[in-house]
Amino acid sequence: MAQPRQMKLGAFLMTDGHHVAAWRHPDGRPDAHVSLDHFVRLARLAESAAFDAVFLADSSGVRDTNVASLSHTSRAASFEPLTLLSALSVVTERIGLIATASTSFNEPFNLARKFASLDLLSGGRAGWNLVTSSSESEAQNFNAERHAAHADRYDRAREFAEVVAGLWNSWEDDAFLRDPESGRFFDPDKLHVLHHHGRHFRVRGPLNVARSAQGHPVVVQAGSSEDGKELAAATAEAIFTAQVTLQEAQAFYADVKGRLSRYGRDPDHLKIMPGIFPVVGRTEEEAREKFAVLQERIHPVVGLSLLSTTLGGADLSGHDLDGPLPDLPETNGPKSRQKLLIERARRDNLTIRELYLAIAGARGHWQVVGTAAQIADQLEERFRAEGADGFNVMAPYLPGGLEDFIAHVVPELRRRGLFREAYEGRTLRDHLGLPKPVHKAPRSPAREAAE
Amino acid sequence: MAQPRQMKLGAFLMTDGHHVAAWRHPDGRPDAHVSLDHFVRLARLAESAAFDAVFLADSSGVRDTNVASLSHTSRAASFEPLTLLSALSVVTERIGLIATASTSFNEPFNLARKFASLDLLSGGRAGWNLVTSSSESEAQNFNAERHAAHADRYDRAREFAEVVAGLWNSWEDDAFLRDPESGRFFDPDKLHVLHHHGRHFRVRGPLNVARSAQGHPVVVQAGSSEDGKELAAATAEAIFTAQVTLQEAQAFYADVKGRLSRYGRDPDHLKIMPGIFPVVGRTEEEAREKFAVLQERIHPVVGLSLLSTTLGGADLSGHDLDGPLPDLPETNGPKSRQKLLIERARRDNLTIRELYLAIAGARGHWQVVGTAAQIADQLEERFRAEGADGFNVMAPYLPGGLEDFIAHVVPELRRRGLFREAYEGRTLRDHLGLPKPVHKAPRSPAREAAE
Repeated sequence: MAQPRQMKLGAFLMTDGHHVAAWRHPDGRPDAHVSLDHFVRLARLAESAAFDAVFLADSSGVRDTNVASLSHTSRAASFEPLTLLSALSVVTERIGLIATASTSFNEPFNLARKFASLDLLSGGRAGWNLVTSSSESEAQNFNAERHAAHADRYDRAREFAEVVAGLWNSWEDDAFLRDPESGRFFDPDKLHVLHHHGRHFRVRGPLNVARSAQGHPVVVQAGSSEDGKELAAATAEAIFTAQVTLQEAQAFYADVKGRLSRYGRDPDHLKIMPGIFPVVGRTEEEAREKFAVLQERIHPVVGLSLLSTTLGGADLSGHDLDGPLPDLPETNGPKSRQKLLIERARRDNLTIRELYLAIAGARGHWQVVGTAAQIADQLEERFRAEGADGFNVMAPYLPGGLEDFIAHVVPELRRRGLFREAYEGRTLRDHLGLPKPVHKAPRSPAREAAE
Repeated sequence: MAQPRQMKLGAFLMTDGHHVAAWRHPDGRPDAHVSLDHFVRLARLAESAAFDAVFLADSSGVRDTNVASLSHTSRAASFEPLTLLSALSVVTERIGLIATASTSFNEPFNLARKFASLDLLSGGRAGWNLVTSSSESEAQNFNAERHAAHADRYDRAREFAEVVAGLWNSWEDDAFLRDPESGRFFDPDKLHVLHHHGRHFRVRGPLNVARSAQGHPVVVQAGSSEDGKELAAATAEAIFTAQVTLQEAQAFYADVKGRLSRYGRDPDHLKIMPGIFPVVGRTEEEAREKFAVLQERIHPVVGLSLLSTTLGGADLSGHDLDGPLPDLPETNGPKSRQKLLIERARRDNLTIRELYLAIAGARGHWQVVGTAAQIADQLEERFRAEGADGFNVMAPYLPGGLEDFIAHVVPELRRRGLFREAYEGRTLRDHLGLPKPVHKAPRSPAREAAE
């Protein structure tokens, strides 16, 4: 009996919430960044609603070097994702556990190993969100003055992903015999040594972790650049992306899915999950009020810093927050977004404060403020119109924002048959509808290749 | 009221046990290497006896390239220690969690961050066992054909430890204000940027993890070379070491403790904990029988491989196991141990099989086979005679060997006042009697240093 297609849902756990002032919310958790119990509650909450996965972003360092602004946000320090998800693997049973990790600041052997270990610990629920990282301040924690150029980063990332995939194929699924009688612990013919010699890496292998119940971790990607989309088409099994309008979402979806055939891949084996920043109210009015509670709490130094960054580093200090945007000199930042924002300010006569409030909420993601039915309408539209296979829910503040979504939007989606009532499988691949990968021997068996 | 000095106890969790045939024991766990429940049971068991810590060894790859031998052992693949201890942090409350990680195959920022995160997750119970690694097969997983020379590895390790310590001092203990009213999340004067520029590393900092209840993870070391002892004297707070005789243990203890004054350190702030491989019986006879159960199960291909390695790579294939050791050509291996072993074989007329059995049990560690009282006598002697501050218990097989030690030896130690009845503190530093480190600002506050 064919199941109707249902959407996938991820819970994006941005410490205290996606909104930059979430930690100041009356029901917020300012101590979230040092509180395991907070994350345990969130993971169990998402699992209680049968979400596909929780998702953790990552940064290999403190990105914001503007200390005045940084010190008014909760973003400077939190748990490291792989250690945190390993802890959460023990207090959950079904939900997927996806952590972000950079190909620029790790060694493929270490990364392949840690994710494989998380995958084993969790019974086949791990996912790796591959990023190449883009900030100078991260690169400066890893022996570099400047970050590598975009193309070089992706060249490394492609080879990195290849090495990781090879290492995850070190052991066949039934390699381990564990037979006390004969003394045979594994079958040497089912151990494969990688012997990778590439431009960026030389990695012998094999990996010293066995395969998991889902074969190996799900590979996720977040980049939406040309290089990013191509790498995703070649290797990724899910994409988390930022698409604001339906048209953008559809274009991205068609673009990426269209690339898969080149790699001999089934378009259904790559799930596209844009972010959504939902503010849920019993009425539209209540939703708007809820949003205002957060917006009001954006400290001006933080708002100005966000605006300045969006405007390519423009210096706005000394200007009246409730006055107009001053004339700005040309900068080196991304031109198009900058230009659109300046045009908007002029057209709508926005003050500096109004302008930073306009960009501060979802910060580049799709923002929907409304009732559960309104939000479900929007999700359903994007899902049915081939704009998404599912969504990454970026709750404005935590746990409240996720509780709202689960209490009100999820039941609405279920009434429409758009989301599962309960888990049917046990692994992240089961939830996402991804096939368990058939073992691919990277090279010859260890028996011949070991020496 | 001054407490009498008590010994520290660590539980060395070598997957299924320290003995190479542990997985073949009738009560063994051949599936230990993929079974979280096994490790949960062990950690809780050690915690129930108020052990100071559990301890995980590590290898950045499969060390043994002799696949025939390797495939008859359980050592090829297990969990990665940091992910495993993060999982165990949730199911334990008091016991310390010490993981080994190599300075040769990691970046200091990543390592400092992951251990700091484990330290936060566990409420101040993490420890880092610093090793430089020594095998070629590990190096070959990290872009190298050969492993770096010993002196170079230690030069890197020294700088690595310095960077990690600096990063762990990024935030003062009370840096985080988390004041929703004012919007001040942290005090910029209490954030310190490292700006490390050294021979091996350039690391800007700050670390993006807050300090834990014990300040930062305990630094442990395992190297017993001249370089290793000096690095331990400069930076380590505990040492795990292999000392077979009382005399060796006393000499090592006096040597290392004597080095601390050069660094202005209190000798009591470095705990020396040699390994012990205990086989506990109700009678000496029973203990010997228990040991025989394991010895009998050493597969000849494994025994020969161990012997061959100890003899510097000598080829013993084709020789009768129950015949004498053949004349061996000179090899490049460590000469002294090799020579002693050959002399012993000649003197005692040992067969090849008898010779590998003689070295296979504790593999370089102190082995005691006897009753609880006999083992307690030996531990007490070493402890009182300044041979040790405590011991790392390397159970022959798991969980049985650790259960035996806890059921029989621990009560005996308690009767003698040598080991705690229950935990008195909450952090690993509390247990080990190490002071919480005073925050040391690596550089100037971030306010000035950020730009």
